[in-house]
Amino acid sequence: MDKKFKKGIVQVYTGDGKGKTTAAIGLALRAAGQGFKVYMIQFLKSPKLSSGEFKMKDAFGNNLKLERLNTPWWSLKSFKNDKHVEKMKEFLKEEMIKLKDIISSGKYNLIILDEINICLFYGLIDLNDVIELIKNKPADLEIVLTGRYAPEELKKIADLVTEMKLIKHPFSTGLKARRGIEY
Amino acid sequence: MDKKFKKGIVQVYTGDGKGKTTAAIGLALRAAGQGFKVYMIQFLKSPKLSSGEFKMKDAFGNNLKLERLNTPWWSLKSFKNDKHVEKMKEFLKEEMIKLKDIISSGKYNLIILDEINICLFYGLIDLNDVIELIKNKPADLEIVLTGRYAPEELKKIADLVTEMKLIKHPFSTGLKARRGIEY
Repeated sequence: MDKKFKKGIVQVYTGDGKGKTTAAIGLALRAAGQGFKVYMIQFLKSPKLSSGEFKMKDAFGNNLKLERLNTPWWSLKSFKNDKHVEKMKEFLKEEMIKLKDIISSGKYNLIILDEINICLFYGLIDLNDVIELIKNKPADLEIVLTGRYAPEELKKIADLVTEMKLIKHPFSTGLKARRGIEY
Repeated sequence: MDKKFKKGIVQVYTGDGKGKTTAAIGLALRAAGQGFKVYMIQFLKSPKLSSGEFKMKDAFGNNLKLERLNTPWWSLKSFKNDKHVEKMKEFLKEEMIKLKDIISSGKYNLIILDEINICLFYGLIDLNDVIELIKNKPADLEIVLTGRYAPEELKKIADLVTEMKLIKHPFSTGLKARRGIEY
């Protein structure tokens, strides 16, 4: 890794409004465009969903690694099933250990944990594991955590917290998520 | 243009928080990744500033046209000079006429007017011109307007309004804008 941020901070994007994941994707593009190395994990996107950002990942070349966890989370049915929830917790516990190695590897300048806040809110990931990751991160690594319901403890240790606030939303009037805009 | 959105809406990203332009860049990436045509105009970025998103524009191929207006706006000194302000207004008036043609050309699925809200707030662009553009847009065109201080009248006619709210910001403790993150 040639380039380094002088100082990497911890950013949280939360709230019920639009643009949390989208802003993270924009950050990834910007950093990769400037020659930094980016690792983005999408915790709650189905690997089957063919999102626009996923289709573009080749465009970033070696500067971006975009990964989706193969969790059954996105199926709400699974989440209502206690056995599935336990499986998810175990799966995510292992992923957090992998993440710890990735962070300490020093390979990346920017690591984005997309929708991890939701996992924290529902207790699928232990908040202490995330706090430990953040506290032990290299000083030049930027970490971005997205998703609504960011826990207060996370906001406290984050350097920059932005709340995306829904002011007006057309989905309440029946417009569905659209390919190319919402995914 | 092969693909079309079934319905294009008007989105506004405003507020004092981070992620407005960044979310717009993410949207551009997502739409381009899905094969839609995107036109993004950055109203208030210096053409000299070598932003990450600008460096990545080749990666989008023909699906993204990213343009920066060569306004002297970004220099606050210019803005305090009445003669410069008048020049900016004239310049932007002409740009709005060009934009009208671009919108009605039907060449694009998504048009992003980055930081245009600031131009509206400071009276550099006539709000009526923007409202007219929106009212006459093709039904399948998505328009995204970003920037803090979005006027109430704009929020009223927009379909989706999101406010990025600053909860905690490290720049107040002396951290400066960083290449690859803030630009």
